[in-house]
Amino acid sequence: VNAKIVLLPGDGIGPEVTEEGRKILVEVAEKFGHKFEFESHPIGGNAIDDFGDPLPEATLNACRNADGILLGAVGGPKWDDPTAKTRPEAGLLKIRKELGLFANLRPITTHEFLLDSSPLRREIVEGTDIFFVRELTGGIYFGDSNLEQNADGSETATSTMVYSTHEIERVVRVAAKAAQGRSGHLTSVDKANVLEASRLWRKVAERVVREEFPDLKYDVVLVDAMAMHLISRPSTFDVVVTGNMFGDILTDEGSMLPGSMGLLPSASLGSDGPGLYEPIHGSAPDIAGLGIANPLATILAAAMLLRHSLNLDDEAKAIEAAVDAVLSAGHRTKDLAKDGEVSLGTIEMGQKVIEALNS
Amino acid sequence: VNAKIVLLPGDGIGPEVTEEGRKILVEVAEKFGHKFEFESHPIGGNAIDDFGDPLPEATLNACRNADGILLGAVGGPKWDDPTAKTRPEAGLLKIRKELGLFANLRPITTHEFLLDSSPLRREIVEGTDIFFVRELTGGIYFGDSNLEQNADGSETATSTMVYSTHEIERVVRVAAKAAQGRSGHLTSVDKANVLEASRLWRKVAERVVREEFPDLKYDVVLVDAMAMHLISRPSTFDVVVTGNMFGDILTDEGSMLPGSMGLLPSASLGSDGPGLYEPIHGSAPDIAGLGIANPLATILAAAMLLRHSLNLDDEAKAIEAAVDAVLSAGHRTKDLAKDGEVSLGTIEMGQKVIEALNS
Ligand SMILES: [Mg+2]
Ligand SMILES: [Mg+2]
Repeated sequence: VNAKIVLLPGDGIGPEVTEEGRKILVEVAEKFGHKFEFESHPIGGNAIDDFGDPLPEATLNACRNADGILLGAVGGPKWDDPTAKTRPEAGLLKIRKELGLFANLRPITTHEFLLDSSPLRREIVEGTDIFFVRELTGGIYFGDSNLEQNADGSETATSTMVYSTHEIERVVRVAAKAAQGRSGHLTSVDKANVLEASRLWRKVAERVVREEFPDLKYDVVLVDAMAMHLISRPSTFDVVVTGNMFGDILTDEGSMLPGSMGLLPSASLGSDGPGLYEPIHGSAPDIAGLGIANPLATILAAAMLLRHSLNLDDEAKAIEAAVDAVLSAGHRTKDLAKDGEVSLGTIEMGQKVIEALNS
Repeated sequence: VNAKIVLLPGDGIGPEVTEEGRKILVEVAEKFGHKFEFESHPIGGNAIDDFGDPLPEATLNACRNADGILLGAVGGPKWDDPTAKTRPEAGLLKIRKELGLFANLRPITTHEFLLDSSPLRREIVEGTDIFFVRELTGGIYFGDSNLEQNADGSETATSTMVYSTHEIERVVRVAAKAAQGRSGHLTSVDKANVLEASRLWRKVAERVVREEFPDLKYDVVLVDAMAMHLISRPSTFDVVVTGNMFGDILTDEGSMLPGSMGLLPSASLGSDGPGLYEPIHGSAPDIAGLGIANPLATILAAAMLLRHSLNLDDEAKAIEAAVDAVLSAGHRTKDLAKDGEVSLGTIEMGQKVIEALNS
């Protein structure tokens, strides 16, 4: 296929890891006979410095015309002044909103060599492979809010969780399709025993699955119970779909399970148009420019881009297998290495993955 | 002191464990020279059977006049019919509401002998001793909610998180006082980076601590980060105060940490009037009447009653020390025993604690 891929390197270690993501995509294009065009654009703190805007118009336009977007990371202490007019993170929020990226995909995969770094016991976490789908543009983070002064000088604040049929349908479809391509097990998480917004969520999710995905194994779990199950029996879940705030809490809890965040990618998808792919780790300004950042989460994000935006599942699997092979061979970046273990730099690690892809 | 204690044995194993709670209180009264009067009243499923009401008027009146209330558990398959007029759990919700029990206290304590039963690795969970204070009568579980039919046939549902100055002040005070009696460290959990209701929570909590409890070590954590920290570094927290829904999710997550729910009590307190004390486990109808239920969570709930409603801290500590001694001596009920280990019945375990109290 021909595809236009926009790179948004961002701040801190963003440029270093994005470059390794680009290289693996170049390699995949060559190996599988595709043609990928790349454009790089500013976002985040450096865009504030250069253009006074964390998401310059030119960046946004390039993203709109792309088939997929690979982002590094944004932010850093330089732009943390609370009195500043804008912040790097505003660029991320705006791009999600402008591109209508309503579904956030967060795979939580475990690797044998990291099992003893998990806070969970090996026998509990072993085999965990969860695919979270979090609704990203609705719910209580985007509902009406209000702060009222009462007559007695006290204040009352409200935040409204709101979901509509259509919003629930589309994110459940994303999750259900993902479940079809995996083990066929979908779990929806809500708080329908108490919340009206969750009762609608549960009703719509059940209808969508019953009418459109009848072959899935489908179950529902309450959010408080899910917070328990995630640590008591994480390996029993496959695809988990939930609302924005519940997903925020549960995916962060889940990100602890593998024993490192350095291997976790994420994707944000809209109805059509390009998806946005990125590592879940931040810009790590303390190690920026040292050449020691771990590029694997970004490389795995590039694999997700191939699968979800370009429909190139074999190519995505080839990258994932290459990463697995490199890790199984014992190669580690500094964040993954145990005391005394030799570690590779960012570029060396990227090169190892390319070699594994071609071997 | 003289005190009137109402017992609400409830359903399933409730009566068996409540009886052991009563016995330890009788023993404490004798040993420390207090006078406790006991009255027992129906609540839950059995009250539905006998009076058509999960919280009969006479039960509620007795509770209003009590100094403390010790509850077993309510519910069971017999009353699970979704078409039923009322449910056992409605009795619990009503008593909390009628008595204005706005603060739910949930200690999460770990025991050496259970460390290898925790889903967390021993070195992570060891030393964990968290005292959760969850707001119980406000927030999104009690805010306005709405379900609307839209013109196009779709629906929109809303649930409103609402907090007022006074509600936040009073629960933060409960938590801050608890922190003074512990290690002096208080953590408030919110989502103030996104939610207006959380921004008010954070503002009021900070003011209460600054003005009234300036000696506390105070920090704030976002709810999604807290879901991570609870499994990555649970032993670094002491008292944690948060809103109703966040507390629901986090205390349930936290209840996994000790490796058994059989040792976890909880308390619900109001501004004045009696507190309600209970084990966090349910009515376990499958083992009701077999004499094998673990009474220790209820016995520890009785200790909380002494501390929080009768201001008898030494007496509470004496019970807690007795439970510790019994467990350290290797005594186990069936739920705590490893394969092949001898286990004690409910009454035998209660007796062991009494012996330890008196030794
Ligand atoms: Mg988060
Ligand atoms: Mg709960």
